[in-house]
Amino acid sequence: MRHSKPSLLDVADALAKLREKIPAIGPAEEMGVDESIERVLARDIYSQVDIPAHDLSLMDGYALRSASATRASRRHPVQLKVTGELYPSSSPNELRLRSGDAAYVATGAPLPRGADSVVMVENVERSGSHVTIFRKPAIGESVAKRGEDIRRGLLLRKGTVLRAQDVGALRGIGRKRVQVAQRPRVGILSVGDELVRQASQDPTMAVGNYALILSLFLRELPVTVEILGICPDRLERVRQKVKETLDRIDLLITTGGTSAGAKDIVVDALASVEEGGWIHRGLRLRPGHTTAVGLVRGKPIVALPGVIIPAVAGLYALAVPLLEHLIGLPQETLLPKVPAVIDSDTKKRNVLSFQPLRLSRHKNGLVATPVGGGAGLLSRLIDSNGFVLVPPKSEYKRGETIDVTPYAPSELTHIEEI
Amino acid sequence: MRHSKPSLLDVADALAKLREKIPAIGPAEEMGVDESIERVLARDIYSQVDIPAHDLSLMDGYALRSASATRASRRHPVQLKVTGELYPSSSPNELRLRSGDAAYVATGAPLPRGADSVVMVENVERSGSHVTIFRKPAIGESVAKRGEDIRRGLLLRKGTVLRAQDVGALRGIGRKRVQVAQRPRVGILSVGDELVRQASQDPTMAVGNYALILSLFLRELPVTVEILGICPDRLERVRQKVKETLDRIDLLITTGGTSAGAKDIVVDALASVEEGGWIHRGLRLRPGHTTAVGLVRGKPIVALPGVIIPAVAGLYALAVPLLEHLIGLPQETLLPKVPAVIDSDTKKRNVLSFQPLRLSRHKNGLVATPVGGGAGLLSRLIDSNGFVLVPPKSEYKRGETIDVTPYAPSELTHIEEI
Repeated sequence: MRHSKPSLLDVADALAKLREKIPAIGPAEEMGVDESIERVLARDIYSQVDIPAHDLSLMDGYALRSASATRASRRHPVQLKVTGELYPSSSPNELRLRSGDAAYVATGAPLPRGADSVVMVENVERSGSHVTIFRKPAIGESVAKRGEDIRRGLLLRKGTVLRAQDVGALRGIGRKRVQVAQRPRVGILSVGDELVRQASQDPTMAVGNYALILSLFLRELPVTVEILGICPDRLERVRQKVKETLDRIDLLITTGGTSAGAKDIVVDALASVEEGGWIHRGLRLRPGHTTAVGLVRGKPIVALPGVIIPAVAGLYALAVPLLEHLIGLPQETLLPKVPAVIDSDTKKRNVLSFQPLRLSRHKNGLVATPVGGGAGLLSRLIDSNGFVLVPPKSEYKRGETIDVTPYAPSELTHIEEI
Repeated sequence: MRHSKPSLLDVADALAKLREKIPAIGPAEEMGVDESIERVLARDIYSQVDIPAHDLSLMDGYALRSASATRASRRHPVQLKVTGELYPSSSPNELRLRSGDAAYVATGAPLPRGADSVVMVENVERSGSHVTIFRKPAIGESVAKRGEDIRRGLLLRKGTVLRAQDVGALRGIGRKRVQVAQRPRVGILSVGDELVRQASQDPTMAVGNYALILSLFLRELPVTVEILGICPDRLERVRQKVKETLDRIDLLITTGGTSAGAKDIVVDALASVEEGGWIHRGLRLRPGHTTAVGLVRGKPIVALPGVIIPAVAGLYALAVPLLEHLIGLPQETLLPKVPAVIDSDTKKRNVLSFQPLRLSRHKNGLVATPVGGGAGLLSRLIDSNGFVLVPPKSEYKRGETIDVTPYAPSELTHIEEI
């Protein structure tokens, strides 16, 4: 039994060391635009076209040359000859207006050549092949100018996480394929004789609910997650499983077996995979000081404790920042942050502290309430919807505005109104 | 050509009428817990078990009866006999402690019978089969009590949208299947000769980017979306397509063809599907007054204009509230709302106004900036990440805190820091 206290590493130092040693994954991947939602652009996107491609009518109405109706008024209306009809499916070249001509244009139709304005249908009188105008339209009235929406040139920057409207814009400029950053492949391996026993008694429990929770917390991020199953607390078994797996994943997360007891073989198992590997147990993180980080065969590893709150603390303090790095994103961009007023003081500690928070919506903003309790209580996660990582030697005072990170973007749908 | 002004219906009245006439979809659906993330619970969930099922050790340490160490101090330590070792996979019945006994317990191990407290391994001295204690532990020290996390009884209420940790808790109490509300099936039909022309020139564009955007905005909600393709502006074609489709969907969204021009046949086509159907064109909504709503063959229909901003306005003002109703959720619960200070006045109008907003994160909270421009500008969606629906005859003043609805929960990941 190893009862010695480990030397504790700062979380920031651990991350810096790993970031220095591992590159962002690559190369970029090409995929269909329609499927690219929430993926990260690997290149700047330039539009080769103007949108709209032609001046369009914004109304159902009549297109004309403004100069044709210069003197139009209620008392002295001007009558124009309707020489055609244009619809959104028409081409502007179908018709050329001369002075004194007008054309019916539906909303979204291109203006015919020679037209510079539109009078809406409600403000005219149509009679046979003529239309009567009672007011001179301004040049450009009720017209969407060519390129007014999207101009040729830079549309979206490399690093943009694609949203619905971005995907729609890519489609709109005629893009069908797009280069995006690969999704890091995360593997989650659960270690523990108790899990093996549970799974042997009931094979449907073989996932282990901590691995399930961690995988679901990562679900909304541009990563893929593989649940690697369960290993008993046996060094050789863990070692074998890690060796088998490292080739096909970009980040390994383990749960359990990082404590200092006789059965806590995960760190030794990881260290045994590769001669030159680096693995450090003991971080200045609370809860979760027994978390281990490492780099084995070039792949980052986060070995989380087998207790739910420390495991989640390590997920957000270590694994998510490493995923941002692997994707090539700046730090703290994968998860939203929302400002909220904290309603009680946090403790000042020497280490980075993970504090679950319950957000509620009050009249003048969001309020964040620390959710306390034991490190093993899943109910703390159920009662909270986000967290703050309080930096070492820092504290937050009641009434202060802090940035709260929801466990996942969808958590914000679950905020109670007070 | 129908140039008459339609009578305008209040959005709230239209929704009330539809809600009254259509029930929530049912029955509940049974599914595997692991896949139930973001689904809506159709029944209250009761736990049949306590979690933890036994008192557990929170530390690697030694379990004992507190009374065995009553007089323990640094100067007068107490030596106990170590009679066993327990791990998370052990049963509490493996060992019964007598007075003067202790047992090694790993973190997460059950306490042996007779033990009531744990002294952490760092605070003892172990020597052979004995362990020396220097302080009497309090009863319950370093122990997670049976049921401390989750007690037998009500765990999650009907109507809960399941998050990662809720799914994990269901797994934790041994649930494998769960009853959830069915996902409403949404169909999106694009109508427009211009889309047909575009698709004929380039078959890969057959989706139509508005339908794509609308479907992706709905992507994070507990609904399924089917893109139904494109119809030309021909009444009979639209009528046929709607007839074919209504049986297999719960909400029909159409885009285009709701204006008052010659080719705007969507409303007439919908009205022609069923004798007793109800369809009303013209809503007190801006932009989007040409939007139509209806009920045909018992299915709600939202016919959106073929212009992007009015289409999105109608999606959020009408379709999303109807989806909440179909799922059986209270109003305004499908999408998050976040409070933000608006940085310019909105106009007071007689109708419900859809106002795109760009959220940015400032030192003391979120700021919402109205994003103006034409109704046809997709770039307004690219420049914004949420909206507010300003009620009729209301306005927001600069500096006021308003509730902003992001287009989708993930939008909150894309808030710029100022």
